[in-house]
Amino acid sequence: MPTRIKRIGVLTGGGDCPGINAVLRAVTKTAIHQHEIEVVGIEDGFQGLIENRTRPLTWADVSGILTLGGTILGTNNRSNPLKYHVGDDENGEPIFINAIDKCLETIETQKLDALIVIGGDGTMSCAAPLVEKGVDVIGVPKTIDNDLVGTDLTFGFTTAANTATLSLDRLHSTAASHHRVMVCEVMGRNAGWLALHAGIASGADAILIPEIPFDIDKICEFAESRTTARRGFSIIACAEGARPKGGEQVVARHDPTSADPVRLGGIGAQVGSQIMERTGIETRTTVLGHVVRGGGPIAADRVLASRFGFRALKMLVGGATGRMVVLDGVRLSDVDLLHAANKQRLVPLDHPLINVARAVRTSFGD
Amino acid sequence: MPTRIKRIGVLTGGGDCPGINAVLRAVTKTAIHQHEIEVVGIEDGFQGLIENRTRPLTWADVSGILTLGGTILGTNNRSNPLKYHVGDDENGEPIFINAIDKCLETIETQKLDALIVIGGDGTMSCAAPLVEKGVDVIGVPKTIDNDLVGTDLTFGFTTAANTATLSLDRLHSTAASHHRVMVCEVMGRNAGWLALHAGIASGADAILIPEIPFDIDKICEFAESRTTARRGFSIIACAEGARPKGGEQVVARHDPTSADPVRLGGIGAQVGSQIMERTGIETRTTVLGHVVRGGGPIAADRVLASRFGFRALKMLVGGATGRMVVLDGVRLSDVDLLHAANKQRLVPLDHPLINVARAVRTSFGD
Amino acid sequence: MPTRIKRIGVLTGGGDCPGINAVLRAVTKTAIHQHEIEVVGIEDGFQGLIENRTRPLTWADVSGILTLGGTILGTNNRSNPLKYHVGDDENGEPIFINAIDKCLETIETQKLDALIVIGGDGTMSCAAPLVEKGVDVIGVPKTIDNDLVGTDLTFGFTTAANTATLSLDRLHSTAASHHRVMVCEVMGRNAGWLALHAGIASGADAILIPEIPFDIDKICEFAESRTTARRGFSIIACAEGARPKGGEQVVARHDPTSADPVRLGGIGAQVGSQIMERTGIETRTTVLGHVVRGGGPIAADRVLASRFGFRALKMLVGGATGRMVVLDGVRLSDVDLLHAANKQRLVPLDHPLINVARAVRTSFGD
Amino acid sequence: MPTRIKRIGVLTGGGDCPGINAVLRAVTKTAIHQHEIEVVGIEDGFQGLIENRTRPLTWADVSGILTLGGTILGTNNRSNPLKYHVGDDENGEPIFINAIDKCLETIETQKLDALIVIGGDGTMSCAAPLVEKGVDVIGVPKTIDNDLVGTDLTFGFTTAANTATLSLDRLHSTAASHHRVMVCEVMGRNAGWLALHAGIASGADAILIPEIPFDIDKICEFAESRTTARRGFSIIACAEGARPKGGEQVVARHDPTSADPVRLGGIGAQVGSQIMERTGIETRTTVLGHVVRGGGPIAADRVLASRFGFRALKMLVGGATGRMVVLDGVRLSDVDLLHAANKQRLVPLDHPLINVARAVRTSFGD
Repeated sequence: MPTRIKRIGVLTGGGDCPGINAVLRAVTKTAIHQHEIEVVGIEDGFQGLIENRTRPLTWADVSGILTLGGTILGTNNRSNPLKYHVGDDENGEPIFINAIDKCLETIETQKLDALIVIGGDGTMSCAAPLVEKGVDVIGVPKTIDNDLVGTDLTFGFTTAANTATLSLDRLHSTAASHHRVMVCEVMGRNAGWLALHAGIASGADAILIPEIPFDIDKICEFAESRTTARRGFSIIACAEGARPKGGEQVVARHDPTSADPVRLGGIGAQVGSQIMERTGIETRTTVLGHVVRGGGPIAADRVLASRFGFRALKMLVGGATGRMVVLDGVRLSDVDLLHAANKQRLVPLDHPLINVARAVRTSFGD
Repeated sequence: MPTRIKRIGVLTGGGDCPGINAVLRAVTKTAIHQHEIEVVGIEDGFQGLIENRTRPLTWADVSGILTLGGTILGTNNRSNPLKYHVGDDENGEPIFINAIDKCLETIETQKLDALIVIGGDGTMSCAAPLVEKGVDVIGVPKTIDNDLVGTDLTFGFTTAANTATLSLDRLHSTAASHHRVMVCEVMGRNAGWLALHAGIASGADAILIPEIPFDIDKICEFAESRTTARRGFSIIACAEGARPKGGEQVVARHDPTSADPVRLGGIGAQVGSQIMERTGIETRTTVLGHVVRGGGPIAADRVLASRFGFRALKMLVGGATGRMVVLDGVRLSDVDLLHAANKQRLVPLDHPLINVARAVRTSFGD
Repeated sequence: MPTRIKRIGVLTGGGDCPGINAVLRAVTKTAIHQHEIEVVGIEDGFQGLIENRTRPLTWADVSGILTLGGTILGTNNRSNPLKYHVGDDENGEPIFINAIDKCLETIETQKLDALIVIGGDGTMSCAAPLVEKGVDVIGVPKTIDNDLVGTDLTFGFTTAANTATLSLDRLHSTAASHHRVMVCEVMGRNAGWLALHAGIASGADAILIPEIPFDIDKICEFAESRTTARRGFSIIACAEGARPKGGEQVVARHDPTSADPVRLGGIGAQVGSQIMERTGIETRTTVLGHVVRGGGPIAADRVLASRFGFRALKMLVGGATGRMVVLDGVRLSDVDLLHAANKQRLVPLDHPLINVARAVRTSFGD
Repeated sequence: MPTRIKRIGVLTGGGDCPGINAVLRAVTKTAIHQHEIEVVGIEDGFQGLIENRTRPLTWADVSGILTLGGTILGTNNRSNPLKYHVGDDENGEPIFINAIDKCLETIETQKLDALIVIGGDGTMSCAAPLVEKGVDVIGVPKTIDNDLVGTDLTFGFTTAANTATLSLDRLHSTAASHHRVMVCEVMGRNAGWLALHAGIASGADAILIPEIPFDIDKICEFAESRTTARRGFSIIACAEGARPKGGEQVVARHDPTSADPVRLGGIGAQVGSQIMERTGIETRTTVLGHVVRGGGPIAADRVLASRFGFRALKMLVGGATGRMVVLDGVRLSDVDLLHAANKQRLVPLDHPLINVARAVRTSFGD
C-alpha cells in the first residue's frame, strides 16, 4: 500500500509495563520491512518530545528486545505538555507552561509525518491536542492495571498477574507450614483487576479490592474459622486501593510525593496488623510493589503487544489519526483516542470472576 | 437455586493439559459450597466409567491442586465406549464391544444424576451417546493444540505456548553464540497454533506449520541470507505436522504405535539435517515433546479453567445437557456437545498472526 | 548394616525453608528401603513433641514432596521445651514450664529409638537436653540466612538467593525505564549473606548489609553520580538488618511482636525515603519479605537437602548421636550438635565476595 | 597493585554455557575500575585470534550482560590453532596449518600484554603453546558437563542441571496422568553428572549414565514393577552417553558431523522404544538437547562466574601465567593450565550421589 508517510516518531508514556519493547519492535520492523518508513524513538515520553531528545530506531536497535521488560526509550509519568514544569518562581512556586508548540517544533525539526504514542489514559490525553493541531497520531493502550475503558485487555496485565500469582504461590508454603495468615499487597489503586486475577489464580482465601469495601470484622472471623481447623492458614490478596467499609482509602505506599516512612504502611500492612491484633493469629504482610510491573513479558503478552504495534503502524499507513488500538474479544479494533480519558474500567460487582471466586468460597470481606 | 441434582460424576479424557485440575477444583468446590452436590471422580477417563472405577472428590481432595499439572483423576486417550477393547480373539485380532451399557450401569450404581466430561473432540464424541440415553452431560473443552471448533481458546494452550517460548528463548543464546541454525519441533500434528504463537513470542526467524506447506529451498536460502551477515543465526519453530510442498507428512515422532527408533526422526530433524547438508551451516534440532504439555498452568489458564469448571457446574444445575462450555471473546457461552466433533480449527492463511509474523520478516518457507 | 533402631521420629523447627520436604523424603525413603525403619512425623516442631502430636510417614506420604516448599509436618519457631508457655497467671503474666519430660514421654509413648531434628541454631539448642537424657539425636542444619556456624552452606539458601535475584532482575527494567533508584529489602537481620549473594547476582549498584554500617551521605552521592549520566539509575539491595554508621538497627518489619503499622517502615523504606528527600531522585522501595523463603527448592537445594537427609539417617544407623550434619567444601561431615549454638556466621569484611563486588564498582555505602 | 599489564585480550572457546558473559563482565569491570587495563574482546574463540577479529570491551559493552546466556563474543568449538583448516586440496582433502604464529601476530598487532581464555579442556590445550611462546595466559574453566579435572564445579552446570530438572518436573505430570514411562535424554556424552544431578533433583525413578552400563532387562522389570501398582508411572533420566552392558555407545544425536535423520534416534529413543516393545507400557521419549545449555545463568552461577572472572584478572595482574582458575570446596585456587587436558572427571561408582539415589530406590539399571 502506498503511503505518504516516510518517517514517524514513537514515544512511551506513563509507568513501565512488560511488552512495551515488543510494541516498539513490531512498529519498527513493520515500518522498515513493509513500508520503508523510518522510525524515530522519542526519549522519556512527552518530555523528550518537548525537549527534542530523539534517536533513530533501526532494525538492529529493536532486534532482541522482544523479551525485555521496561522500555528502551525511557518513560516519564509526570510530563504533561499542557502543563510543563519549567522551574520555580522566586517564592518557590512551580512555573508551568503550555508546551504543545515545543512538541510541534520537535515534530517539524525531526520531519515526523506521524506519531505513535504508547501509554495510558494520561498519555492519550496529552496526545489529543496534537491531533487537533493536525498531527497524525495513533495510540496504543498500556496499563498494568487493566482498567482502561474501551479495550478488553492491555498487554502487560497477563504478565503482571502471573508474576503476582507466582509470589502468592510462594507465600502458600510458608503460610501452610506456620499456620499463619499472609497478606500480600499488589498494585491497583482504583481497580482491583490485578488482585482479583492473581487471587483467583493462586487460590487466595480472601481478595480485597477497591470496588468492594471490606469489613475487617468479617475478615477476622473468616481467618479465625480457617485457623480453627488444625493446620488452617489464610492467604489474603489485597489491592493497594482496597478500603474498609465507610473508611477512607489509606495513602498508598507508592505515592510518588510521599517520602515519609511512617506513611509507607499501606492497606496491606494495616489489614495484617489488625488481624494479628484482633485474632492473635500470627500474620505477615508482603508488599510486592514494583516487582510486579518489572521483568519481561510472558508469551501471551509478547504476542498481544506485537499485534498492537503492527496494527498501530498499519492504521497510520491507512490514513487514520486520533484513534487508539483496542482488543475487542479476540479481534483488534480501534476507538477514539480520548475514549478512555478520565474514566476507569472498574471491576463490576457482578463480574463473572467475582462469582467464580465466591463459588470456591473466597471471601471479599463483604 | 434449587436443583434436583444431588450427585455428579466428573471424568477427564484425552491427553493431559495444564489446568485440568483447576477445572476439577472449581467444579467440586462450587458443587459442595453452593449446591451441596456430591462429586465423584471417575478414574482414567471413559475406561473408569466402563470399569466402575471411581472415588469421591471432597473439598480436601481438590484443595491445593489448582497449581498442579496433569489430572489427579488419571486420563486415557484410547478408550472409546463405542469400541471398547476387551481382549484378542484366537487369531490375535482385537475384540471390541459397545460398552455404553456398562457406562450406564456405572452411572446407576454410583447414583450419578449428571456427568461433566473434560476432554477434546474425541471425549465429546464418546459422551454424545450417553446424552441420547438420557444422561445429563456437560462438556468442558480441553486441547493443548487449541484447534477445537467453537471456542476461541482452550485452557492449557496459553501455558503450553509459554513453555515452548521459554525453550525457544533458551535456544537463542546458543544459536547466537555459535552462529547456528536451531530447529525446534513443537507439538501440533494438524494445526499450527502452538508453533505460531511460540514462534511469534520468541521472535523465531521462521515458523513451519501444517497449514502452510514449506519449500525447503526457500528455507535454506533464508537461513543462508541470515548467516551471510556476520554473527547471523536462525531459529526455526517447527510444528510436528509441518510438511514440504507436494510432500507427505512425516510419521510423527509421538505416534503411540511407533516403537521404531528409525522413525523417531520427525520433521524437525529432517528439516535440520537438510539445512545442514545443503547450506553447510551448523544446525541443531531439539524436540520439545511432552515437556510442553506438562507442568502447572500459568495464572491465565488457572483463571480460565476455573471459569470453565464453574460454568459447567452451573449449567448442570440450571438443567442443561448435551452442551459444551466455550469461550466467545471474553465471555463464556456454550455450544452443542458435538459441535466440535470431527472438525479441527486450523490456522487460516489470512489470520492476523500470520500477517504480524510476516511483517517482522518471519519466513513461513512459502 | 544391622541396626538396633526400628523406629525414629523426625521434626522440623524454626522458620520454613525450601528443601525441608526433600530432607524428610530422603530420611523416610532411606529408612524404609534400606533399613526397614519406621518413621514418625512430629507435627509443628517441638510443640508436637511436647503435645504428642504425630503421624506416620510412609513411602506414599513422602512421594511427590521433593519439589514442595515449606514442610509437610508444620513448624513452629516459638516453642522451646525448656521454656514452654502453658498459659498466663492471674496477672496476665505468661507461665512457662520445663517440658523436657513431656518430650521424653512422647518419645517413649511413640516408641522412638532416635530423633532427627531439622532446624537452626534454636532447634539444635532445644534438642541438646534430650541428648543429655540419653536420646539419640542427629541434627540437620536449616536456615534461610546461611549464617549457621560449622557448615559452608545450608539447603534453601541457594533457592532464596535465586528468588531474591529474580525479583531484583525485575526491578531493573522499571528502574532503567524511569531512571529511578529502586531499594529492595531482603531478609537478613544479622548476617548479610542473602543481600550479598542476590546483590552480586543481580548486578546491584549498592549492597547494604549489617556487617558494614553505611553512610547515607555516601549512598546519596553514589546514586547522584549514577543519575547524572543520562539514563542512569540505581538498584540497592538492602538487608533488613542493615544499619547506618553510628546508628541503631531499625526495628525490623518482620518482628513477630510488632502489630504497629507505623513500625512497618523498615530500613529499606528509610533508606529509600532519605535518598528521595536528599537527592530529589525518584525512589521506590520494595520489601520482598516472606516471598523469598517460600516456594519449592531449585535443583541444587533438592540435591543438597537429599544428601543431608540421607546422611542424618545413616549416622543414626551407625550409632552416632548429638551430632549435626554439615557441608565442608563439597563433602558432608558432622560437628557437635551445639557447635552452632549462640553463634552466627557473619560476612567477614575481607570475604572474597565483598572484593568481587567492589571490583565491579558496587558500593557498600562505606 | 602496580602492574606492567595495560591491555589484555579475552576469548571464549568451546560450547556455550550460562555464565560466560558474567565472567566477561567481571574481567572487564575489574580491569577498568581497579587497574585501568583495557580489555579487547576476541571474536569466535581461537578463530578470531587467528583471523585478528576483535573489538574493544568497554564498561558499556559489559553492562547488563550479567544475566544473558551464551557469549557476546561468539564462540567456536572447532578451531584449533595447531590444526587450522584453511581450505581443501585438489582432491577435496582438508588442508590444515599450524596457526600459532598468526595468533602471536594478532597478540602483537593488538598490543595485548596477556590473555584470558574461557573454555574447556580443548580451549586450554589450544592456549598452552602460547604460554610456551611467552604469552601470559590465564584459563577460566567452562563446561556444561562438569567433567573438568581439577575443579569441584564449573559455572553453568548448576543452571543446566536446574533447567533439565524443571523439564523433568514437567514430564512428571503427564507421566502420572497417563501412567506412562517417560524417558528424558539430557546432555552428557562421557560423564553422567548432569543426568545424575537432574535425576536426583527431579526424583527420577531411574538414571542411566555412561559410567554405569545398564541392563535393559532390569530397566524393563523395574518399569513393570512400578506400573503393576495401579497409577504407577516411571521417569527415566538418561545421559546421551548412556550405554547397555556389553553394548557400544549409540551415535549421539548431537554429533555435529551427522546429517542423517536415521541416526538421530539416540540412546533415549532406543531405551524408550525397547521398554514399549518389551513391556507394552506406553512410553514417550523427550530429548532436551541444546535447551539445557541455553538461557541465562541462575543466581549461583552468576556469582561463581563473577568470582572466576575476578580471580583470573587478579592472577594476571599478580604476574601469574599458564594457570587455570579452579574451585576447591568453597575457595578459589588454581592449577596448571594443562592439568585438565586429555582427562575427564567421570562419576565414581561410589560417589555419594549414587548412594543417595540408590537409597531412595532409584535404579541405575545395573
